[in-house]
Amino acid sequence: MSSDKQITLYYSKMSVNVHRVCMALEEAKLSYKTYPIQIAAPKPAWYLEKINPKGLIPAITYGGPDVPGDHPSPSATVITESPIIMEFIADLRPHAGLLPADPVARAKVRMFIDTVNTQLVPAFLRFLKEGASYEPVLDGVRAVQRLLPEYYENGNGTWAVGDTFTIADIAAAPFVARVRLPGKYSVGKYAAGEERLLQDALDSPEFARFKAYGVRLFERPSFKATYDEDHIVSEWRRLLA
Amino acid sequence: MSSDKQITLYYSKMSVNVHRVCMALEEAKLSYKTYPIQIAAPKPAWYLEKINPKGLIPAITYGGPDVPGDHPSPSATVITESPIIMEFIADLRPHAGLLPADPVARAKVRMFIDTVNTQLVPAFLRFLKEGASYEPVLDGVRAVQRLLPEYYENGNGTWAVGDTFTIADIAAAPFVARVRLPGKYSVGKYAAGEERLLQDALDSPEFARFKAYGVRLFERPSFKATYDEDHIVSEWRRLLA
Repeated sequence: MSSDKQITLYYSKMSVNVHRVCMALEEAKLSYKTYPIQIAAPKPAWYLEKINPKGLIPAITYGGPDVPGDHPSPSATVITESPIIMEFIADLRPHAGLLPADPVARAKVRMFIDTVNTQLVPAFLRFLKEGASYEPVLDGVRAVQRLLPEYYENGNGTWAVGDTFTIADIAAAPFVARVRLPGKYSVGKYAAGEERLLQDALDSPEFARFKAYGVRLFERPSFKATYDEDHIVSEWRRLLA
Repeated sequence: MSSDKQITLYYSKMSVNVHRVCMALEEAKLSYKTYPIQIAAPKPAWYLEKINPKGLIPAITYGGPDVPGDHPSPSATVITESPIIMEFIADLRPHAGLLPADPVARAKVRMFIDTVNTQLVPAFLRFLKEGASYEPVLDGVRAVQRLLPEYYENGNGTWAVGDTFTIADIAAAPFVARVRLPGKYSVGKYAAGEERLLQDALDSPEFARFKAYGVRLFERPSFKATYDEDHIVSEWRRLLA
């Protein structure tokens, strides 16, 4: 299904938050084009002026004429911040089921996303990029795992909130994937050996539910279509050297 | 209209984020009971364990038996974080119109709330409670004002996003009200005279649109029913002395 209106995604393959938006667009079967933005470089003046004064990605333009990404039309709507873009995509294609209809379930989806964003993400990025301890990363994983249904324990898990794959799962997937990469590739600014302690903990019985959730996530076609581990690791090696 | 299910709000009259939830509940005409939580005191163990491990308010319980607030039922749903509770209330009573139906307008509501939360709120709280400069407060007001429709200039303003009063307006109102209080009462931890500089700037032509927006907000019945300026100022005097 194509979108009624044009969607341009300001994009970097290595950005975790862009990854969320790509998964949501895949799930909603919306067509879109991408415009590349370098994460670790100064942003072009037109980007800061017309798309996002904060200089962050992802951002999308929606509607207006189909113009080149570096000449955004003033008649398009600019939408920033990955949780807001995910909600927008869910609203645009309600039949994709990316947000449940029930108000309580919707609140649980949003609390799950908030927990990922405030408890797991900052701890992981400080560990990876600033060399902070791995222990707050485990606290973040614990906070996320606490919200996962118990049935993951016996391998019968469905998704974070109920039986439907939602933007809660999309918000988590890029981080659940990346949290395994230090242990697998020893890439990051942490003290040598910390990545082993993190990985051993993640492989311990305490985190069985989180691990089973990851196995489910990584099988999702929208994840497979949007995740490039080799690229992420090589970019991390380059940027975190 | 009464709620089908019980709602208990963990409450302090001086909390800006609780104020948002009270306004949303008034707008949605939902009945609820409150349970008092002291902002500046250690939280009871049952609150940390059963309601919010972060110890923050607001939080609500929804559904389950009608039990005392300090004995929450495990069959109730706990919802935390004021933006998530506002969305929940909007979802629960769609006819109250607190969120527009159009996906683009919904995204604009959420970006407005995000701008208030990330650009105005932290700068104002650092000014008030930590004595930081007033200039970042003005930057926050500028960021919010930039999103307000131009028609505020000539006094014809309706609301932040379109013609309908939404959770964007609810998110802003408690802060738009409080940002005037340092200039009016000289209460806060900033250096003497900073409150005058802030107020003079807010009264200057640059901020006419923001000021006109405030006049509209403060006339809203749900604001009047939930705002107690004397109480807030006396609590600030006590806590920030």
